[in-house]
Amino acid sequence: MHVLITGAAGMIGRKLTERLVVDRALNGQPIEKLTLIDIVAPVRLASFSDHVKTRAADLNEPGVAAKAVSERPDVIFHLAGVVSGEAELNLEKGYRVNLDGSRALLEAIRLTGDGYKPRVVFTSSMAVFGAPFPAAIDDDFHLTPLTSYGTQKAMVELMLADYTRRGLLEGVGIRLPSIVVRPGKPNKAASGFFSGIIREPLAGLEAVLPVKESVVHTHASPRSAVGFLIHAAGLPRDKLGPRINLNMPGVCCTVAEQIAALRRIAGDKVAARIKREPDELIIRIVDGWPQRFDPQRSTELGFRAESTFDEIIRVHIEEDLGGKIAA
Amino acid sequence: MHVLITGAAGMIGRKLTERLVVDRALNGQPIEKLTLIDIVAPVRLASFSDHVKTRAADLNEPGVAAKAVSERPDVIFHLAGVVSGEAELNLEKGYRVNLDGSRALLEAIRLTGDGYKPRVVFTSSMAVFGAPFPAAIDDDFHLTPLTSYGTQKAMVELMLADYTRRGLLEGVGIRLPSIVVRPGKPNKAASGFFSGIIREPLAGLEAVLPVKESVVHTHASPRSAVGFLIHAAGLPRDKLGPRINLNMPGVCCTVAEQIAALRRIAGDKVAARIKREPDELIIRIVDGWPQRFDPQRSTELGFRAESTFDEIIRVHIEEDLGGKIAA
Repeated sequence: MHVLITGAAGMIGRKLTERLVVDRALNGQPIEKLTLIDIVAPVRLASFSDHVKTRAADLNEPGVAAKAVSERPDVIFHLAGVVSGEAELNLEKGYRVNLDGSRALLEAIRLTGDGYKPRVVFTSSMAVFGAPFPAAIDDDFHLTPLTSYGTQKAMVELMLADYTRRGLLEGVGIRLPSIVVRPGKPNKAASGFFSGIIREPLAGLEAVLPVKESVVHTHASPRSAVGFLIHAAGLPRDKLGPRINLNMPGVCCTVAEQIAALRRIAGDKVAARIKREPDELIIRIVDGWPQRFDPQRSTELGFRAESTFDEIIRVHIEEDLGGKIAA
Repeated sequence: MHVLITGAAGMIGRKLTERLVVDRALNGQPIEKLTLIDIVAPVRLASFSDHVKTRAADLNEPGVAAKAVSERPDVIFHLAGVVSGEAELNLEKGYRVNLDGSRALLEAIRLTGDGYKPRVVFTSSMAVFGAPFPAAIDDDFHLTPLTSYGTQKAMVELMLADYTRRGLLEGVGIRLPSIVVRPGKPNKAASGFFSGIIREPLAGLEAVLPVKESVVHTHASPRSAVGFLIHAAGLPRDKLGPRINLNMPGVCCTVAEQIAALRRIAGDKVAARIKREPDELIIRIVDGWPQRFDPQRSTELGFRAESTFDEIIRVHIEEDLGGKIAA
């Protein structure tokens, strides 16, 4: 089994790599080769082993996508892309990386021919949806993204489904909810506070909450995101049918419930590190985001997220804090 | 007012041109210039006047899209594309013409800058939807096309909405139902019989019906299609909102009702020219097509189709047969 990960240097790419290096198997078959590509060379893990190859490469450069698939990886996790904020600030870069880069990969697979038909797992996003929303977004709600990022993800989903239908590859698009708790430093994403209000207090730092506690949102941990990817890689084609792009499950809760979970796990002193500082811009952006989903298909297909926000916090403490919190 | 039509040599392009040459106005403003482009030079009409320019040009060739928008047309009707059957047979051509050609046009508009913000009316298709369907497809049903053509139309819709949201142009995507009665010779489109069972008998010829009379489908006349385009060109931006891609109205009826209408209008002898010859391939293809829509938004926005199939037949007799039928 040869596995290729694009965007392997990103947060989810790194966690997926760690998991595959530990498992040394995917879909019940041993991984003989693991190829990691990203525009910066993916970090070699402490547990790095000789079956892992890393390479700095941009799928948009001529020949790069062809080279990436020339060794005929059996499973491709296509995570490469620029994030929402960057795609919005830089229209050309967003379309080039998120749309053209993905298309270059699909085309390289098609042009390989000779019966080559890899499983391609694509990380899409709930950003393919745009307000106004029903009380819960079901599996057949239409695609009306309100960002260029969401537009590019939706366009790639469509192309992935078409190439799958034509028998050129076996695509699965997984629409991720917000992934929290993101490890590392705060970033400027409008959604950053969903992680920040948990991560910073647990690290002994103050965090800013820019929205009301009544805001409802759907979350899953990075561990769940990796679980979705691995589960998608092993889904039987006949169970999936032609609608290959799936809303992933997650924990739907209010910000107040997030904070209550933090208090249960880490105590009042930690929870008190959250400062309320309303930010009109962030309030307006978050108002346009999906709140609640009813992801029946992915649930029936066996995708699993956490059941409570407490679990999501515990995953962060285990995975990123070595079990320790700054009480 | 300067109007540009791409794909002007196609059936709808020709009928739109005829209408605009007669009206000499659009959105209540006189048309000073009408530019028609297509990969073959659009036919000059009998009523051709000196304000109409025609040109053979392929939007995918370097510089062609830039040249097309360099005179800053106020309204662009973007009809150019290859049809469903061709996009399915030739993957590369379908993506090149339907996706890349459209993108070239949008990019040329964006790169013009300097406040240039034309109204762009794009002919999309109900082929953006794919089975299984609910009893009636409402305005927020998701996009799961089952053809490359439908995929390409959906991808362009998404990009058109994004460019509109970003203020680069004012897009409207109109998803056409089946347009009948198509004038001219029978073609090999799987949907061809919907027109054929009306057109051929009215011309004194036999027609083949390859499906059961219980098949349900939604139709509008070419005159309605032109009406949709013109109405879309004049829609106030604030009434449209961010969801710029709209399901058009049409007449939903069974094949039996189509035939009954033909009999009412032209008599038993004409209707008897329809021969039942079931074709398993066409039956299977048609089974996957949308049947009934509930196009609330477009109806509220003032788009109008015929109310009965009788009217659709009468439009054909008037427009294409000079009022005469072969009894």
